[in-house]
Amino acid sequence: MQRVGIVDLGSNTARLVVFAYRPGRWFRKIDEIREPIRLGESMGRGNRLSEPAMQRAEAALNLYAKYAQVMKLPDIEVIATSAVRDAVNREAFLQRVRPLGLPIRVLSGEEEAELGVRAVANGFDFEEAWVVDVGGGSAQISQMLQRRSAAGQAYPLGAVRLTESCLESDPPSSAQVQWLEKVLQENVGQVCQSIRSDSLPLVAMGGAIRNMARAVQKSTQYPLDRLHGFYLTLQALDELSERLLAAQARRRARIAGIHPDRADIIVAAALFYRWLLRSSGREGLWISGQGVREGAFYGRFLPHPHLLTDIGDFSVRNIFEQYPQSDLHTEQVRFLARRLFEELLPLHGLGARHAFLLDAAARLHDIGMTLGYHKHHKHGAYLINSSPLNGFSHRETALLMLLVRFHRKGVPSWGSLGKLPGQEMAGRRVLLQMAACLRLAEFLERSRGGRIRDLQVKISKRKVRIRLTASENPFIEIWETKKQAYLFERAFQRRLLLEEEADDRGQIPSMLKAGAAQ
Amino acid sequence: MQRVGIVDLGSNTARLVVFAYRPGRWFRKIDEIREPIRLGESMGRGNRLSEPAMQRAEAALNLYAKYAQVMKLPDIEVIATSAVRDAVNREAFLQRVRPLGLPIRVLSGEEEAELGVRAVANGFDFEEAWVVDVGGGSAQISQMLQRRSAAGQAYPLGAVRLTESCLESDPPSSAQVQWLEKVLQENVGQVCQSIRSDSLPLVAMGGAIRNMARAVQKSTQYPLDRLHGFYLTLQALDELSERLLAAQARRRARIAGIHPDRADIIVAAALFYRWLLRSSGREGLWISGQGVREGAFYGRFLPHPHLLTDIGDFSVRNIFEQYPQSDLHTEQVRFLARRLFEELLPLHGLGARHAFLLDAAARLHDIGMTLGYHKHHKHGAYLINSSPLNGFSHRETALLMLLVRFHRKGVPSWGSLGKLPGQEMAGRRVLLQMAACLRLAEFLERSRGGRIRDLQVKISKRKVRIRLTASENPFIEIWETKKQAYLFERAFQRRLLLEEEADDRGQIPSMLKAGAAQ
Repeated sequence: MQRVGIVDLGSNTARLVVFAYRPGRWFRKIDEIREPIRLGESMGRGNRLSEPAMQRAEAALNLYAKYAQVMKLPDIEVIATSAVRDAVNREAFLQRVRPLGLPIRVLSGEEEAELGVRAVANGFDFEEAWVVDVGGGSAQISQMLQRRSAAGQAYPLGAVRLTESCLESDPPSSAQVQWLEKVLQENVGQVCQSIRSDSLPLVAMGGAIRNMARAVQKSTQYPLDRLHGFYLTLQALDELSERLLAAQARRRARIAGIHPDRADIIVAAALFYRWLLRSSGREGLWISGQGVREGAFYGRFLPHPHLLTDIGDFSVRNIFEQYPQSDLHTEQVRFLARRLFEELLPLHGLGARHAFLLDAAARLHDIGMTLGYHKHHKHGAYLINSSPLNGFSHRETALLMLLVRFHRKGVPSWGSLGKLPGQEMAGRRVLLQMAACLRLAEFLERSRGGRIRDLQVKISKRKVRIRLTASENPFIEIWETKKQAYLFERAFQRRLLLEEEADDRGQIPSMLKAGAAQ
Repeated sequence: MQRVGIVDLGSNTARLVVFAYRPGRWFRKIDEIREPIRLGESMGRGNRLSEPAMQRAEAALNLYAKYAQVMKLPDIEVIATSAVRDAVNREAFLQRVRPLGLPIRVLSGEEEAELGVRAVANGFDFEEAWVVDVGGGSAQISQMLQRRSAAGQAYPLGAVRLTESCLESDPPSSAQVQWLEKVLQENVGQVCQSIRSDSLPLVAMGGAIRNMARAVQKSTQYPLDRLHGFYLTLQALDELSERLLAAQARRRARIAGIHPDRADIIVAAALFYRWLLRSSGREGLWISGQGVREGAFYGRFLPHPHLLTDIGDFSVRNIFEQYPQSDLHTEQVRFLARRLFEELLPLHGLGARHAFLLDAAARLHDIGMTLGYHKHHKHGAYLINSSPLNGFSHRETALLMLLVRFHRKGVPSWGSLGKLPGQEMAGRRVLLQMAACLRLAEFLERSRGGRIRDLQVKISKRKVRIRLTASENPFIEIWETKKQAYLFERAFQRRLLLEEEADDRGQIPSMLKAGAAQ
């Protein structure tokens, strides 16, 4: 296991994130220290880092250096963005913090945009997109083509700067808002026209948009506690902007989801994104939970070009590696679930994406055992809910959770998760049928000994007959699976019959044939 | 690690529970198979196990024997209760299942009562209590004195038997209900008088009462998902009984919390407990999540007399052993939390029980790290919520959850958990003050290096001054703890000042003194 600390020295916030990882295999965040340093404060007047701002940044870097030393962190990297990059006294600042011994890399606007694009390329299944990051000092807008940054640029239009230069009163007057929008039009109106001319998805990252997305989720009781992959609509952003514009900073700080130390600058960020969506004719944008820090981390985690081959597949493996379970049992449940899905195709008619989702659920079905047997199906759903999961829509994430939650007992239903968009892709029937496949696979592997070698399915109008080929008499499996017939029968509207392929090893106990197992 | 399977062959249900454990150290359930065998069916007519009932029991035992073989379970014990004990054809049944090779122990009524009492003695802080277990075949009523069974007896008044002998129609007529109560009065009226004559708490166990408690929790939106330690009031039981009496079995099976295969006999059990509470003049009873199976398990887990010395302390250690974290860090946080609690006594005025609870929270504060750093405070609360925790009231359990949930950030509040009884023991102030102690302890150990050796506190009217003795300059600790002053100040209504004991190792950076860390 390796560890690396990435420090992002932004114009509003400094943050140390520590990753533990095995290159290319798995990674997870193991620590984080956030400092609201407001390094870009008052830079509008002469592009100069102020003395108090430099003191705060130095203190934060000092803290991180001490942390690295005490924690014996072998590897640390500081990336500095717009505030340092643009400062006329940048060299003085760098010299001042040099004694701390931290390697500081000042990113150019293009490099910063590139790291953002890399985070998106490894966080979404999009091949092409527009990537936007409104930070404290600058705003990056980049086009991603074939998962690479095709054109990326930083504009000195971050939320701290825009607030200082345009929004003098609090709350801002409508004249100030108009002025800000005019500034945006003049500086990024052209790139916005390019966005308007295509239909690529818009992906946004950074602390400000995450705060806004969280506020929208809280105020609408969004059923999933997850930002990455959230689709923030222009309508929701409009409503939030109105709320932000109507209040003073002190009251904005109390809006659930808005970090108090951002309350003064969040309005400028909201106005930026609102203007961008309106001007580019988009109905909404996708929230990326990964940003420049993760982009930098992927640079270490993966060899050039630092791209995951299959994002969804990696996410599932990454979770499994953290909560590992018996490989043999897991593989057997995956195999049986896949076979059932294949054989039942005439009844469910689902395709490759659903097959992949079922397989992901089979891989993760027992991760809750890490927390103990008791309620491990609930634990598993909880773990999926609280793990990063890239390459899945929120509806798909919820589907995974429900499949794991109901892999042992009960009848799944969408409940409040049914509010998530994507019902046409996975509604009640799909949930039941996929759950039935996983449930049968789990109980056909009840003794966890891989005794079922294969199965054949015969479908008739009223019945589904599953014939098992087994290495030993699968007494436990048949007995226990029969108890689960109710779910299958509800999902596929047919009676379930289970039998072992006749062979010469022994007979199935007569009481089973008689159906005494209820 | 050892494993043992305990099979409870009851009159209504057979259940195999597998425990993993290290004797005296820790244990957890790792598997469970439940079969609704209804072995006591039709026994009223001549006390004879019927052929179909024996077939079902044999099939279940066959399943368990196969399971033990396939899972290489080294140790298994079957305990048979009332149905087998009372059957005139008991020897024929035992001979019939002998080929399965399972060691079957038929418990006498006293032995069964004794195991139940042992489960209560290891599940509650009571020294003395009445323990009641209405099973399928028999009902046990025992008196526990000095944590031992003083007088325990089994009566042939289990729910299956009572249903068959008294409640012929469905739903039962009021004449049938009266008849059942008359039967109870005749058979257990005398012991009920003994209960009436003292004020010992009443503790109930077994599947039926657990189902009823669950139903009451669901219908009242009880804020904790936990049965053990729940206090079921007579009033709630009255209301539930009315619901049960008004419906037929098919509809009762759909009441949330009631297991469908108990829906026919649950009415008899409800009437038994209602009668018992009314006749003994009690306002409610405590639910034990542990029963005869656990009683048998403790017989292996602990040497004679099979009693835990300190139930609450054991529960906390048992959880910690399952989600172990750095011992050094945990011990240091415990130490600092204890020191803060001691020194702040003049302000909070809390006693030994609260000190114990704070210590428990300190021991468990990082268990969520097992699931990953990200949101580990939430994970920790989740793990406590889903772990068995004996020797704590539900209010105390909720307090533990909140202390862990808020050990890193935010301001705790009771929310819906405030509905739990016990507000006088832990309300808003207590929660804030204990949370502040734990929060400071955590951040005074931020670098996880045990650098703070001790602390002294000076309390004045407007300020609390904490003076640290440290092995090295505790730069990170002071810096990070200052950020948490807001919680302390809200809890204790005084400004917090932190400083290191002057020494000759070096100076505290001036920017810290200047309070630049916001």
